[in-house]
Amino acid sequence: MTVLIRPDLAALDRIDPLRPFRDRFALPQGVIYLDGNSLGALPRATAARVAQVIEAEWGRDLITSWNKHDWMALPGRIGDKIGRLIGAAPGETMVGDSTSVNLFKALAAAVRLKPGRRIILSEPANFPTDLYIAEGLAALLAEGHELRLVEPDAIEAAITDEVAVVMLTHVNYRTGRMYDMARITAKARDAGALVLWDLAHSTGAVPVDLNGAGADLAVGCGYKYLNGGPGAPAFLWVAERWHGEVTMPLTGWLGHAAPFAFETRFRPATGIARGLVGTPPILSLAALECGVDILLDASIAEIRAKSLRQSALFAQLIEQELAGHGFAIVSPREDGARGSQVCVAHEHGYPIMQALIARGVIGDFRAPDILRFGFTPLYLGYGELWDAVWVLKEIMEDRSWDRPEHHARARVT
Amino acid sequence: MTVLIRPDLAALDRIDPLRPFRDRFALPQGVIYLDGNSLGALPRATAARVAQVIEAEWGRDLITSWNKHDWMALPGRIGDKIGRLIGAAPGETMVGDSTSVNLFKALAAAVRLKPGRRIILSEPANFPTDLYIAEGLAALLAEGHELRLVEPDAIEAAITDEVAVVMLTHVNYRTGRMYDMARITAKARDAGALVLWDLAHSTGAVPVDLNGAGADLAVGCGYKYLNGGPGAPAFLWVAERWHGEVTMPLTGWLGHAAPFAFETRFRPATGIARGLVGTPPILSLAALECGVDILLDASIAEIRAKSLRQSALFAQLIEQELAGHGFAIVSPREDGARGSQVCVAHEHGYPIMQALIARGVIGDFRAPDILRFGFTPLYLGYGELWDAVWVLKEIMEDRSWDRPEHHARARVT
Repeated sequence: MTVLIRPDLAALDRIDPLRPFRDRFALPQGVIYLDGNSLGALPRATAARVAQVIEAEWGRDLITSWNKHDWMALPGRIGDKIGRLIGAAPGETMVGDSTSVNLFKALAAAVRLKPGRRIILSEPANFPTDLYIAEGLAALLAEGHELRLVEPDAIEAAITDEVAVVMLTHVNYRTGRMYDMARITAKARDAGALVLWDLAHSTGAVPVDLNGAGADLAVGCGYKYLNGGPGAPAFLWVAERWHGEVTMPLTGWLGHAAPFAFETRFRPATGIARGLVGTPPILSLAALECGVDILLDASIAEIRAKSLRQSALFAQLIEQELAGHGFAIVSPREDGARGSQVCVAHEHGYPIMQALIARGVIGDFRAPDILRFGFTPLYLGYGELWDAVWVLKEIMEDRSWDRPEHHARARVT
Repeated sequence: MTVLIRPDLAALDRIDPLRPFRDRFALPQGVIYLDGNSLGALPRATAARVAQVIEAEWGRDLITSWNKHDWMALPGRIGDKIGRLIGAAPGETMVGDSTSVNLFKALAAAVRLKPGRRIILSEPANFPTDLYIAEGLAALLAEGHELRLVEPDAIEAAITDEVAVVMLTHVNYRTGRMYDMARITAKARDAGALVLWDLAHSTGAVPVDLNGAGADLAVGCGYKYLNGGPGAPAFLWVAERWHGEVTMPLTGWLGHAAPFAFETRFRPATGIARGLVGTPPILSLAALECGVDILLDASIAEIRAKSLRQSALFAQLIEQELAGHGFAIVSPREDGARGSQVCVAHEHGYPIMQALIARGVIGDFRAPDILRFGFTPLYLGYGELWDAVWVLKEIMEDRSWDRPEHHARARVT
């Protein structure tokens, strides 16, 4: 492999077809942001749109905005927009609540579609909230459901006729490893099990084709690659073929067939609307839509091509520039098995990441020893990859990572 | 009773100690807003605060804001502020998710604290989401729980030793009838049952003393009298004496004892933090805090005194000015049994309300025949009550309510 120099990366920036999208984000000076997989950057349109919703809609039109500005349509309208990024048909996706709450809905719905089966199959390194929600649901149901955790390579063999639902995060939050969605889904279907995909680290980052794969349920996150803002509403997707029989566990008034009839008994709405629970969070939805709209203007194929090139180059630069400093690349090197991040293990990962952040290179740390770097092709340039690795090299060579302030544990890591 | 004239009401405005609070809201010209019980008005501070969170916190400090701006503390910080309005101790209240989702948490927690009991007791005219959530939970548990609905006057007699939890909305959404919280709670305690209060139409409108009453659990809404914005996050309150044994059904990662340890098994956080589920919705929380802060600067006793005076005067004006037009006041006339609204039945309630709204007098309609008027003493004047009734009188006398456009049904009523 030839040695990379900074002009190679600058040249890639000059021919980058996604380069114009960077101007649609408000990025701070002096920061190289490699954490859009944790909190996406701020779209330039968001502040004005949220101000409009606050001042012109809420402030001026008050309660009449539910009709006048069709606030009630937002969960479905934004859901359909996200649906275009994940291979969903219109009417299959709704936005609202958190990813965790949507996981609960989807998982409860799944196990009730498979009443004779007791196994929820996942992997021990899944994102913890997925496992906790499953554990909590099994305890609540008290019907002997078991959360069975097997390593990724053993998932397929573990999909037996006892399995109600295979619950996996498509791209692992810590390693960036990506499952073959079509393959796992087909294997589950053959065994009569359902598949619930958590697309938190996929949506807006890698091409997803839920209907093409024949998936059953999915959830995803609004504040990572969709750039919807901190704690943005999440989404729930249910394949249309299940809409007639799916039973939601959180039967709030907005999932009712006629919410404003104020009936005493629950009758579920038709379609994905039965996944709605409470009153939609309008300010947050408005912000999310600004982020989603940018994605819809871009080509997910171009995003994926740039993401793979960026992650491969970043890994190559780590190896080229930081040999002998104790870093081990954890993420898969094979393109088809890698999401949009590169995770690097180091025994001093925590203080090294704090030192990087102090120098304006922002990634994050995942216990016990992972430095995580995410690639967001809409606003991250190639030259920045070089600069980030250069800062990392300086930190390692002058051992500035070992200063006491970088060892202090923050509340949020 | 003496006949009221407009100068009587104008005189009350001149001596109103809450009058200065009106300037803290951005109210549209030409509108008399009697629907703050459905969507509270916009505080003047909100737009700037949300813009700051978007541009200076999210935009500039990105992921580091979780620590730098202590975003993670918002659910507890705002929870404690709301707690001061409802007689909670610090550490008993958290903000996040919708009222419906919090009801699910609280109700599931309650029935699990009373494993031998199978009755969830409520009233048929409770707000539907409360009933739907209970119905959905009972179906999910599949342990034979029964949602037993009895009329308000029969609640006390129905609190037997089969009852796990009495689930009531303190102030009824349709009639404005208010329960005697201390009395019902004491009765439940004597029977070994828990009480779950829905404070959607109470918080910020009437004095509430959960700990004084000995209540067990409560939920409430952020977008009504707290002026948090459309779909604002709701809150969950659990009495401290239950914190050690309460089990939440939605076990998301932020309810974990150590969220950033990323452990495989769930260990609940200490205290009310175990009611957290997913990532907090920061933009919405920032908006909510602006609304709550205004309430904390006011005296709830003064709010209550003005609210009772306003609702009594409004009812009196309806009777004085609209006799013979077919209106019947549904809300209790007795102060101690009335929340902060006056509900009026009329067989043509729907088109009459649409005609009022078209003339700038905004209340809302609740099926089948209720015109609902809410009183928000922080920004509603006495003179406006006269003006609202005057417009209603004109609409009835010229029969303009009967125009075709007022009969057209809106999506949201």
